[in-house]
Amino acid sequence: MQQLTIVKIGGNVIDDENSLTTFLMDFNLLKGHKILVHGGGKLANQLQDKLSVPVNMVDGRRITDAETIKIVTMVYAGYINKNIVAKLQSLNCNAIGLSGADANCIQASKRKVETIDYGFVGDVERINSPFIISCLENNIVPVFSAITHDGTGQLLNTNADTIACELAIGLSGSYNVQLVYCFEKNGVLQNIDDENSVIKTISNSDYINLKERSTINKGMIPKMDNAFLALKKGVGSVQIGRSDKLLQLVNKENYEGTRLYN
Amino acid sequence: MQQLTIVKIGGNVIDDENSLTTFLMDFNLLKGHKILVHGGGKLANQLQDKLSVPVNMVDGRRITDAETIKIVTMVYAGYINKNIVAKLQSLNCNAIGLSGADANCIQASKRKVETIDYGFVGDVERINSPFIISCLENNIVPVFSAITHDGTGQLLNTNADTIACELAIGLSGSYNVQLVYCFEKNGVLQNIDDENSVIKTISNSDYINLKERSTINKGMIPKMDNAFLALKKGVGSVQIGRSDKLLQLVNKENYEGTRLYN
Repeated sequence: MQQLTIVKIGGNVIDDENSLTTFLMDFNLLKGHKILVHGGGKLANQLQDKLSVPVNMVDGRRITDAETIKIVTMVYAGYINKNIVAKLQSLNCNAIGLSGADANCIQASKRKVETIDYGFVGDVERINSPFIISCLENNIVPVFSAITHDGTGQLLNTNADTIACELAIGLSGSYNVQLVYCFEKNGVLQNIDDENSVIKTISNSDYINLKERSTINKGMIPKMDNAFLALKKGVGSVQIGRSDKLLQLVNKENYEGTRLYN
Repeated sequence: MQQLTIVKIGGNVIDDENSLTTFLMDFNLLKGHKILVHGGGKLANQLQDKLSVPVNMVDGRRITDAETIKIVTMVYAGYINKNIVAKLQSLNCNAIGLSGADANCIQASKRKVETIDYGFVGDVERINSPFIISCLENNIVPVFSAITHDGTGQLLNTNADTIACELAIGLSGSYNVQLVYCFEKNGVLQNIDDENSVIKTISNSDYINLKERSTINKGMIPKMDNAFLALKKGVGSVQIGRSDKLLQLVNKENYEGTRLYN
């Protein structure tokens, strides 16, 4: 099977124009098929503040009321997505910006209210892989924002880590998928305050032990749960590390960051 | 050649959720290949007001400074575009939302400063028809916002009428294109205050006469210039009329609105 690299970037890269440009130059150098998934950065918060729409976060997840879904759609699927696509085009990378609604790429369902009502937040139901594959086979690079739809006309705010994970799973039948989570740290750290304490490899059983010993930082747990789910469901490898080390992260040997395996 | 209908809608449909839903149901009923191009409505003005970014219009064209291009990208390519796509998906119309940057569909150049500096406003240079054709042939319906790019990473605000016209011209070698401009009037009117004074057909020479006699309302001139340019460059037909009469506008006979011909 051909190689497919799916890279997820978060806020820290997006919030800084220079970091974003440098990152996209590295991303453009990745060989083979590739997909970029981006989060929202602080821009959605800033716009909510300016528009006096309160920002409510629970465990890092945004409570998304009717006004907030409009704002995140504008920011994620509009400004950030098109800005990334235009920059990639300037590097001769034929990118296409997609939300889950576009060509019905990612259908989701509104999260059921249990203890918390997250509002217009979506959990991924289905990846439409034929369209995405047709892009890849025509050397078009999909750039996904974290906006999906429910099939009844409602847009939904969806976690970008989860989108990257579900895309990786959905495409793992057609490609040998390498999933790369970029964030602001060197990797998964033994000691959250020591950037030199990167754990080079973590197996699923290591992960269970690390969680039990509370070595894994709470904020990392959803990301790592996603990563191990992806590995369990056929994704070839998952790598976690700094966005400004993308090319070193994807190295097969002498890699930087943390590699997860089943 | 196969039929392709390109429909442009303006602000009046977009600003009202019910009108938009009804319009999209009609659009979905159009037979054969189709493309939708949308303007921005009042939403961009409203957002500019809320963010204290002054709205400057010259002859109906928006002066687009650095803050304004961010706002129109958010509104046009983000909220409006994805909302339309999600609604079409709910009607089982497999829509894909595109800006000119996506898959390099529409490349433009920043308008040169002559008497007026329009800022980040683009004039269309090139339509990338192979990608658009591949969407159409796979029964994917492109929905274009009026945002393009210049190939060097800069997004540009571009007139939606012009985008519809340039798409029609660019695709007229591959399809028999019918271009439909929807707006808030019954058609091109003999008397601007009388909705019953629709001129049923206007030839290019009629148009020159009507302009000389100042019968054509000033605001209609850019739209009609576009329309006659399209006809001259191979577009099969151009129809102008009300968005809530879309299905009657596209009728070959007993049509509503105004039909233009060379």
